[in-house]
Amino acid sequence: MSSGVIHVINPNSTTAVTAGVDASLGALRFSGGPAIVCHTLEQGPAGIQSEADIAAVTALLIARARSFGDEAIAIVIACYSDPGLAVLREQSSCAVFGIGEAAVLRALAAGQRFGVIAIQPGSISRHLRSYGAMGVMDRFAGERALGLDVVELNDQSRTWARLLEVGERLRDEDGAEVLILGCAGLGSYRLALAQALGVPVIDPCIAAVTMALGEAR
Amino acid sequence: MSSGVIHVINPNSTTAVTAGVDASLGALRFSGGPAIVCHTLEQGPAGIQSEADIAAVTALLIARARSFGDEAIAIVIACYSDPGLAVLREQSSCAVFGIGEAAVLRALAAGQRFGVIAIQPGSISRHLRSYGAMGVMDRFAGERALGLDVVELNDQSRTWARLLEVGERLRDEDGAEVLILGCAGLGSYRLALAQALGVPVIDPCIAAVTMALGEAR
Amino acid sequence: MSSGVIHVINPNSTTAVTAGVDASLGALRFSGGPAIVCHTLEQGPAGIQSEADIAAVTALLIARARSFGDEAIAIVIACYSDPGLAVLREQSSCAVFGIGEAAVLRALAAGQRFGVIAIQPGSISRHLRSYGAMGVMDRFAGERALGLDVVELNDQSRTWARLLEVGERLRDEDGAEVLILGCAGLGSYRLALAQALGVPVIDPCIAAVTMALGEAR
Amino acid sequence: MSSGVIHVINPNSTTAVTAGVDASLGALRFSGGPAIVCHTLEQGPAGIQSEADIAAVTALLIARARSFGDEAIAIVIACYSDPGLAVLREQSSCAVFGIGEAAVLRALAAGQRFGVIAIQPGSISRHLRSYGAMGVMDRFAGERALGLDVVELNDQSRTWARLLEVGERLRDEDGAEVLILGCAGLGSYRLALAQALGVPVIDPCIAAVTMALGEAR
Amino acid sequence: MSSGVIHVINPNSTTAVTAGVDASLGALRFSGGPAIVCHTLEQGPAGIQSEADIAAVTALLIARARSFGDEAIAIVIACYSDPGLAVLREQSSCAVFGIGEAAVLRALAAGQRFGVIAIQPGSISRHLRSYGAMGVMDRFAGERALGLDVVELNDQSRTWARLLEVGERLRDEDGAEVLILGCAGLGSYRLALAQALGVPVIDPCIAAVTMALGEAR
Amino acid sequence: MSSGVIHVINPNSTTAVTAGVDASLGALRFSGGPAIVCHTLEQGPAGIQSEADIAAVTALLIARARSFGDEAIAIVIACYSDPGLAVLREQSSCAVFGIGEAAVLRALAAGQRFGVIAIQPGSISRHLRSYGAMGVMDRFAGERALGLDVVELNDQSRTWARLLEVGERLRDEDGAEVLILGCAGLGSYRLALAQALGVPVIDPCIAAVTMALGEAR
Repeated sequence: MSSGVIHVINPNSTTAVTAGVDASLGALRFSGGPAIVCHTLEQGPAGIQSEADIAAVTALLIARARSFGDEAIAIVIACYSDPGLAVLREQSSCAVFGIGEAAVLRALAAGQRFGVIAIQPGSISRHLRSYGAMGVMDRFAGERALGLDVVELNDQSRTWARLLEVGERLRDEDGAEVLILGCAGLGSYRLALAQALGVPVIDPCIAAVTMALGEAR
Repeated sequence: MSSGVIHVINPNSTTAVTAGVDASLGALRFSGGPAIVCHTLEQGPAGIQSEADIAAVTALLIARARSFGDEAIAIVIACYSDPGLAVLREQSSCAVFGIGEAAVLRALAAGQRFGVIAIQPGSISRHLRSYGAMGVMDRFAGERALGLDVVELNDQSRTWARLLEVGERLRDEDGAEVLILGCAGLGSYRLALAQALGVPVIDPCIAAVTMALGEAR
Repeated sequence: MSSGVIHVINPNSTTAVTAGVDASLGALRFSGGPAIVCHTLEQGPAGIQSEADIAAVTALLIARARSFGDEAIAIVIACYSDPGLAVLREQSSCAVFGIGEAAVLRALAAGQRFGVIAIQPGSISRHLRSYGAMGVMDRFAGERALGLDVVELNDQSRTWARLLEVGERLRDEDGAEVLILGCAGLGSYRLALAQALGVPVIDPCIAAVTMALGEAR
Repeated sequence: MSSGVIHVINPNSTTAVTAGVDASLGALRFSGGPAIVCHTLEQGPAGIQSEADIAAVTALLIARARSFGDEAIAIVIACYSDPGLAVLREQSSCAVFGIGEAAVLRALAAGQRFGVIAIQPGSISRHLRSYGAMGVMDRFAGERALGLDVVELNDQSRTWARLLEVGERLRDEDGAEVLILGCAGLGSYRLALAQALGVPVIDPCIAAVTMALGEAR
Repeated sequence: MSSGVIHVINPNSTTAVTAGVDASLGALRFSGGPAIVCHTLEQGPAGIQSEADIAAVTALLIARARSFGDEAIAIVIACYSDPGLAVLREQSSCAVFGIGEAAVLRALAAGQRFGVIAIQPGSISRHLRSYGAMGVMDRFAGERALGLDVVELNDQSRTWARLLEVGERLRDEDGAEVLILGCAGLGSYRLALAQALGVPVIDPCIAAVTMALGEAR
Repeated sequence: MSSGVIHVINPNSTTAVTAGVDASLGALRFSGGPAIVCHTLEQGPAGIQSEADIAAVTALLIARARSFGDEAIAIVIACYSDPGLAVLREQSSCAVFGIGEAAVLRALAAGQRFGVIAIQPGSISRHLRSYGAMGVMDRFAGERALGLDVVELNDQSRTWARLLEVGERLRDEDGAEVLILGCAGLGSYRLALAQALGVPVIDPCIAAVTMALGEAR
């Protein structure tokens, strides 16, 4: 008998991302604990890289959220830009978490100033609006982008090299004491990066699903 | 020969609101100045009262904005919640203004602390997220709602009485030195309210269209 | 086989408080999930009501934390003033959470402005220093005290009446959209208060232990 | 028939600056729109470079503002340090705008973090006090000075080289998404700089006079 | 042999105010310590109640400051609005303190949130700009005015009654833990008010002259 | 006849530090002024470098403070981390000042943005929590560490070289207009550093004892 279901929605259509998210959540699956079910938004874009993508997936997210049954205790939106967060909160009878918001909140309990590793520079401005709306700019150290496209992200050694480089600058130049992976799909690098840089590294999916565990019945 | 067109979109389907907005902009129409054209989003909801309404009109706004020709110098979204502001800015080749953002910016040049008169209490939280994202919470005195529904808003004497009552509390209890009408459709009360309360009152549509005039070619 | 132990330390010597905390955490205990073990600091004061109390329990907390074995994945300090949080974080090899900090972080995902129900007015100033250090004052609606002493808190109908009264003022006068029980020992009122007031109510112990679940191996 | 007069006062005595300001405002002059009249404060210093200069021009500004007739709808103080802004607002029956304040407000609608190009490093501290009083430090990316004196500013190729250099640092190192020309006399470089750097560039005089257009009768 | 002179300038022409300030500084006069000399700005207005008054006294303050000899170690401007503070700092070779700024800084070491008792409501907005420029709005509880004119202030029992009333509201409704007398001339009520209200009360003249003692040679 | 005693407690056991503090306070000792008595906490650690050190000295500080007689007008805690500040304030009948808090407050009257020179990088996070609790992050330019251990600090030429280097970076890269020596034992370098860098440099012990002079009877 489960104590409810946590639905994790990857709002893009790339199943490899969903699989990666699913894999990263293993430690949070307990027998007798909430089931954690990961979904792919098949009609979504291959990746969420613009405000237009965010606008496009919002309606899809609303529809998908409506399909969840009574056993749902929480919905997690697995994109760092938290698309549809406000509207899903309004429309859902269970708790709703965005991985961007949850990651920042978790980071605030791990270090005085947080730094964020984004994929593309174009998303930093959007993220900053979120941090402002969250009222946490006094804790913000900086955000820097890997600047890698999807093909480049598949090159693991190149991605790792950039993660190290960007993480070091956030730690040493910007004064970050904790780093956030500003993307749903980088969780596999988390432990190695934390070890290499000597600072805590937050996987936003783990942060959000952990919060969702608190809704267990 | 005009110096360009400012397109003002009322994102709800109530043509009376569009007409009211249009009427309030008379003083900003100059011969030789930009044309100011007001649009109704016929497929939008009768009013925008929820996050679901905002999500629903965003796609409509994107489509409408795409229909504007090369003579467009600016687009103004005439709803205080600024639906679609980020995505229209990303997708448009001309400047885009939201009346909520513009009203707050104008108020910052009119008094040290601003107060906002909302229509419904349910929208205050959404507005606060915007003020946070704008980084202006140190200037925020308070926001209070009229608590009137659409039918009640048609009763002008009742609306006026509530405007006075709410405005006085914002001024006297919350310390507001300037008031913002937190809605596109209250412009007709602006001058009387400013006179009755002795503080500047900002009509958000005028604030945004004024900013748009600066884009004149 | 457990996935580690979460140690929850009540830093006062009142075993009834520990029992209440223990009872409130039932929904977070999963077979196969982390064990949640509650401790009483027998040498601590009967309650923590002053900076002197905080100073006094800090050394006790350090000693107790050192006694935990390798299976510890997290330590939770079950006092809303978060005594010893910084030093335990420095001295421990596992994660450390304070229920005050965790409650505020959880509240930030539940409403735009949070209100806090303290037991005694004298602790509000101390809490405000924490919110300032957390950098979240832009999200703070207000904090008000029940003003009840230990004997009065044992009178459940009186406590309930004050919770309702103070909660309503935080919601209606201060604009709080989410309330925090600013004390480890009020968890049994949480659901009833949330239902009575129509806003989410955060139990700080649940908030912190939920965060700790994310440390599961 | 005009809809009122906007009086723009250059508070220094350098008529070339006034002429430059006047030229930059061409696009805001509409037949039927407000007249825009630029004034030189002949008794002012050649440039405003110190707190002493600001103190000295304040009395002159008050006197000049008093000389404007009933047709004045707005007064614009054309110095980025906004000398006399508070006192002119108190003493005038029409709206008063400072180009520093207006530029920052306009920038807030153009990018999440603003950067400012000052002429001399000594004025940055003064500007920061203004941004603080405006409550917008969370949106501030940085301010850097050209470090050019009046003679050097007359060397256009040198000025252009420094504008590019300083603008790039604000954009790339400080994260500015929008730049402000922190001086009344740099407007002629605006469009070229925006094109060269790929970010919006705000001319403070245009920002203030645009705001003033909203006062049209 | 003195260790230098602290010049305290009352920027209004009311010698009774200067005398009151002088009397309040008795405890800071030590044999062998800095001499504390109080000055009246005879050409200043009877009181400083407007931005125009501030503009008017600035030139007088600059002239008076220039008259001080080499033995000056500090200049204190004894008006809570800190007229001329920036320019005197720029023009003087010794340290310059404003009693408004100094009072707020002293209050920050006496309680988590400060409240201010102003004389007239019209000055509150001006003071708020200063607190914003100081960056201390997160510590600000509120400011309320006595609403008494000069004649009424001479009625000591009426003044005392209003001080009590306003101080109680700041303490009980606004949450102030420390109160500032927002005026140079209320020092004689300080101790009685602190005793009556049970919170520290800051006399801004004492706060500023104390800071000035640190410049002793 | 003295006007009371200011007790300055060095919370570490290194008497050389106490002697240095004592020497730096010479200019604040006036015949007829408060006596300034410096104490060494003999049972304290050789230096305060961790949260554990802070926890350890707190009880010692409470005990020492209790030993002071009725003539005490103020207690100064001479460690930049302000150990025990809250509890001593609660437990003492006289005023209590921490040199960290006092230094920041003094710096706020000396420049718009303050920079801090710490000894070790590990203390920066702790200091940032304090600045946050003080609510002054908008005035914070940066903090950088010398990175010298106790032995290296005894090498005066090496210490001086690092002070210059770190101070220049704070001034030139971080925009600090005033520097704080973030340690009780660097006072002997203050004047030379201010002269070399051309910005005010605050000795935290002088800042705190100066504030304490205001408590003179």
